Amino acid sequence: MAAESRHLRELPEAKSMHLLASTSFGRLVFSQHALPAIRLVNHIVDNGTVIIRTHLAGTVLAPAGTVVAYEADVIDPHTHLGWSVIVTGLAEWVTDARDVVRYEQMLRTWGDGDMDQAIRIRPHLVTGLEFVGDGGD
Amino acid sequence: MAAESRHLRELPEAKSMHLLASTSFGRLVFSQHALPAIRLVNHIVDNGTVIIRTHLAGTVLAPAGTVVAYEADVIDPHTHLGWSVIVTGLAEWVTDARDVVRYEQMLRTWGDGDMDQAIRIRPHLVTGLEFVGDGGD
Repeated sequence: MAAESRHLRELPEAKSMHLLASTSFGRLVFSQHALPAIRLVNHIVDNGTVIIRTHLAGTVLAPAGTVVAYEADVIDPHTHLGWSVIVTGLAEWVTDARDVVRYEQMLRTWGDGDMDQAIRIRPHLVTGLEFVGDGGD
Repeated sequence: MAAESRHLRELPEAKSMHLLASTSFGRLVFSQHALPAIRLVNHIVDNGTVIIRTHLAGTVLAPAGTVVAYEADVIDPHTHLGWSVIVTGLAEWVTDARDVVRYEQMLRTWGDGDMDQAIRIRPHLVTGLEFVGDGGD
């Protein structure tokens, strides 16, 4: 079974952010009514921050910002080789009007729903994990 | 852009659990030091519950059990069509010796590390989301 001959390698922050920027979607992890919650969203990486758009903004974010986690991965479903990057940081609404317009052009919301809003996550902790075969990478 | 012509469809619980059982890995969502956290793990669905193995057990679970979320998805990286299933429920250590042995045979831990332990998540809330093209499914 190929999945057994894997090991885990931690990635440096710059490489992790590069991988995150190479993908278009991931998972926003937050608390909702004091319960752990997770939702798929699209993202871009802009100037070292993670930008998402969601119509969940009102339930996810406190006015002063909320600590969230954001995860993206690319995993081979058979070998389980690949990588996972997890960013933890303060999420805030994007309020600058030029940024709002720019991000609306660059990003689609994931699901249905109007009233979506752009959110910026400023990475405080970046964890990059690579799952490689024992033969190398 | 194909991703724009999608819409979201909620799936019934039985279908959602069936999809979850059809995949071998997902993401455990929990609180760690009061911060949102997420980790890739392997899973099986057994008797309506989600079984995972992780060496995080000691940091994830309180002795009386902890509410977690668990997410698995299969998403086409180009069209973003696919599905996501999210289970929220109480996670507890598997203590029955026969179950422990059985799950050790059926499940591999995801990363490195010894001292892993089987965890059972009893679904309290099951959310299944399907992302389909506007042409149908």
